Amino acid sequence: MNVFWNNRIMRLSPYIAGEQPRNANIVKLNANENPYPPSPKVIEAIKKAAAGDRLRLYPDSACTVLREAAAERYKVLPEQVFAGNGSDEALAFAFGAFFQTEPADEPVLFPDITYSFYPVYANLWGVPFKEIPLRDDFSINVSDYYEAVNGVIFPNPNAPTGIALSARDVLCVSKHCAEKNKTLIVDEAYQAFGAESVVPFINENPGLLTVHTLSKSASLAGLRAGFAIGQRHLIEALERIRDSFNSYTVDAIAQAAAAAALLDISYYDEINRRVIETRERTAVELAALGFKNLPSSANFIFTTPPSPLNAPRLFTLLRENGILVRYFDKPRTKDFLRVSIGLGSDMDRFLEVCAAAVKNAGCA
Amino acid sequence: MNVFWNNRIMRLSPYIAGEQPRNANIVKLNANENPYPPSPKVIEAIKKAAAGDRLRLYPDSACTVLREAAAERYKVLPEQVFAGNGSDEALAFAFGAFFQTEPADEPVLFPDITYSFYPVYANLWGVPFKEIPLRDDFSINVSDYYEAVNGVIFPNPNAPTGIALSARDVLCVSKHCAEKNKTLIVDEAYQAFGAESVVPFINENPGLLTVHTLSKSASLAGLRAGFAIGQRHLIEALERIRDSFNSYTVDAIAQAAAAAALLDISYYDEINRRVIETRERTAVELAALGFKNLPSSANFIFTTPPSPLNAPRLFTLLRENGILVRYFDKPRTKDFLRVSIGLGSDMDRFLEVCAAAVKNAGCA
Repeated sequence: MNVFWNNRIMRLSPYIAGEQPRNANIVKLNANENPYPPSPKVIEAIKKAAAGDRLRLYPDSACTVLREAAAERYKVLPEQVFAGNGSDEALAFAFGAFFQTEPADEPVLFPDITYSFYPVYANLWGVPFKEIPLRDDFSINVSDYYEAVNGVIFPNPNAPTGIALSARDVLCVSKHCAEKNKTLIVDEAYQAFGAESVVPFINENPGLLTVHTLSKSASLAGLRAGFAIGQRHLIEALERIRDSFNSYTVDAIAQAAAAAALLDISYYDEINRRVIETRERTAVELAALGFKNLPSSANFIFTTPPSPLNAPRLFTLLRENGILVRYFDKPRTKDFLRVSIGLGSDMDRFLEVCAAAVKNAGCA
Repeated sequence: MNVFWNNRIMRLSPYIAGEQPRNANIVKLNANENPYPPSPKVIEAIKKAAAGDRLRLYPDSACTVLREAAAERYKVLPEQVFAGNGSDEALAFAFGAFFQTEPADEPVLFPDITYSFYPVYANLWGVPFKEIPLRDDFSINVSDYYEAVNGVIFPNPNAPTGIALSARDVLCVSKHCAEKNKTLIVDEAYQAFGAESVVPFINENPGLLTVHTLSKSASLAGLRAGFAIGQRHLIEALERIRDSFNSYTVDAIAQAAAAAALLDISYYDEINRRVIETRERTAVELAALGFKNLPSSANFIFTTPPSPLNAPRLFTLLRENGILVRYFDKPRTKDFLRVSIGLGSDMDRFLEVCAAAVKNAGCA
C-alpha cells in the first residue's frame, strides 16, 4: 500500500549495509570495523558525559569540543570542521549542498566501482550522476574527472578496491573542479590505513572537501561520529543543510567520545599499525594460496580466489564456517570478496577455511 | 564566497535552536528540557552499552531494542515503529517521504503559529506549504484542515502555545487526509504533559503518523532519540529515506538508553507529574501578577506580561538576571514569552524577577 508515498520514495533504491549478526561467535569481516576496542580514554569520556543530569540538556549544537579536537589533530581551524552523525551523514549533507539537482542535466562524477552509497545519495536529492569506469587494474584515472561540471566524489583509498591515489593526483582533480566552481569531495574514511591525506592542502583548494569517520580507524562505529574539513564557505553550506534537517545530530556522548579519540593519537597509531601489519601478512598468505589481491591501503583486502573456486562459492563456504565477508554481485566485482582485516586470530581462521577450500576445489 | 553552493543552499532559511549557554549558573527555561535527570536505569544501560569493545561495531541499524520498547509502551507492533536521531530527524524524513514536492503546487498545511522547524523542512525538500491562522484564542480550528490535498502536520499539544486538541478532533483531520491518500503527522513531543495521544487509533487510520521524542518527557535531550508510529507502509517509507541518507542514525548508546527510558514508566510518570504540578502553580502565580497565560498542556507556558511591561523588555530583564526564556519576534507572537517549566526553585527565581518587573513597570 504505497498510495501515501511521494514521488521521491518511489524512485529510491536504499543502501544495504553489511549484516550485523547477533551471534557473538561469528568472525565478522564484513563491515570494515576495527578489531581493537576504543581507547580507554574514550570510555572515560563517555562516563563523564553521562554523569549526573547532563543528558537532560540538549548537546552543544556547534559540536565545539569535537571540532576543536579534529582541528588540533588535522592542523586546521575549528571553523573549517563540520561534525556529523558518522561520515555517512556528512556525505548525505554534502550531496545536498554542493551538487546541482535536476533539472540540471550535468552529472556529478564518481567511479563505477566505489562506495555504493554515492548513487543512493544522488537519487535521494535528485542529483544526476555518471559512473566513470576504473582502469582495467581497478585504479582511478584522474584525468577522467577533469571535465566534471557538477562536481566529483571518490574515496581515497577507494573502496572496495583499497587502491590509493597520491595527494598530487587528487589535487589535480581538485584544481580542475575549482576552476568551474565545483566541489571535489574526497572520502578519507580509510586514509589512516595507508593513503596520503589532502587535508594539508585545504587552504589552497576552495572546492576541496575531505570527509572523515571515527568508525574505522577510531574503533567507534557504534557511536556515529564523523566530520568534514574544508574552507569556511563549504562548511557553512553543510551547517545550513544540517540546521534545516536536525539541529543536533551528534549526541553529547558521541561528541565527547569522538573528541577523546581524536586526541589519543598514540593509542590509535598503535592499533592501526597492527591492522596494517595483519593486512600485509594476510595478503602474502592469500597470494601463496593463489588468490589475486588488489594492492590495499585500507583495512580490507579485495581479493579473487583461484579457479575453479570462485567468489560466491567461497563466500558461502566462509559463512558456513561462521566467517562473514562482503560480496558485491555486480559485473566488474563478481569475482572478488571484500575481506575486512580482523585480529590476527580472526585472519588465521579465515585463511584456514580458504586453504581448505582451495584444496577441496582442486585449484592448480 | 558562495559560488560552490547549489540552488538548495541558496533558498534555505535554517532553524535557530534555543541557546545552550556554557554557564552552569543560568536558569535555563528556553528549550523545554526536563528539569529532572534521566532514570538511574538509563545510566546503567549506557554503562553496559559502552562496556568492553562493543562500540567498535556498528549499531543495530534496525534499532530493534528501542523499537520493541516503544511498541510495548504504546501497545503497537515493533514494525509500526520507526526510530530516529531525535524526533527532528523523524520529522525531516517524514517531510521527505509523504509530502509531494515542487512542481506539485498543492501546499502541505500547518498552523501559522507552531514549531518553527516545519517551514524549514518544507524548504529543504522543496515542499510547498501554507500556514493556516490559529483562531483568535490561539487554538487550532480543525475544519480548516479538511480540504488539505498535500497532507497536514501539527503538534498536539501545539507549540509554543501549549494548547491541546482532543483525540477526536485530531482524528477528524486524519480521516479527511486519508480519503485523499494524504498523511496527517501529529507531533506528540509534549503529549506526556497533558494531551491525549492518537496512537491507540493508528490501526484504523492509514494516513496517521505520530512522532515522539525522548528529549522532553524522558529527560534525554542530550542523547538524540525519537520515534514515529504508524501503519507499516508509512514506517517503510521512513526506512527507505533513512537508508538513502545514513543507515545508522541512532547510535548504540542512544538505542540502549532510550529503550531503558521507555520501559521505566513509574520513574517518568512521577517526574512528569511534578512538572505538571509546577506548571499549574506557576500559571496561578503568573495570573496573580497580571500575566495572561494560554492554557498549557505542555511543559512550558506561553504568557503575556501585563502592560506597560512587555515581552521583549521582560525577556531582557530575565536574561540580565540569569534566566533564559524564549521570545519569538513575529507579528502574532511578539507579545508572548515561552517559559519552560523547571524545578520549583527555578520557577521561584523566575517569578521573583517577574514580580519585581511588574512592580517597577508600575503595572495596574
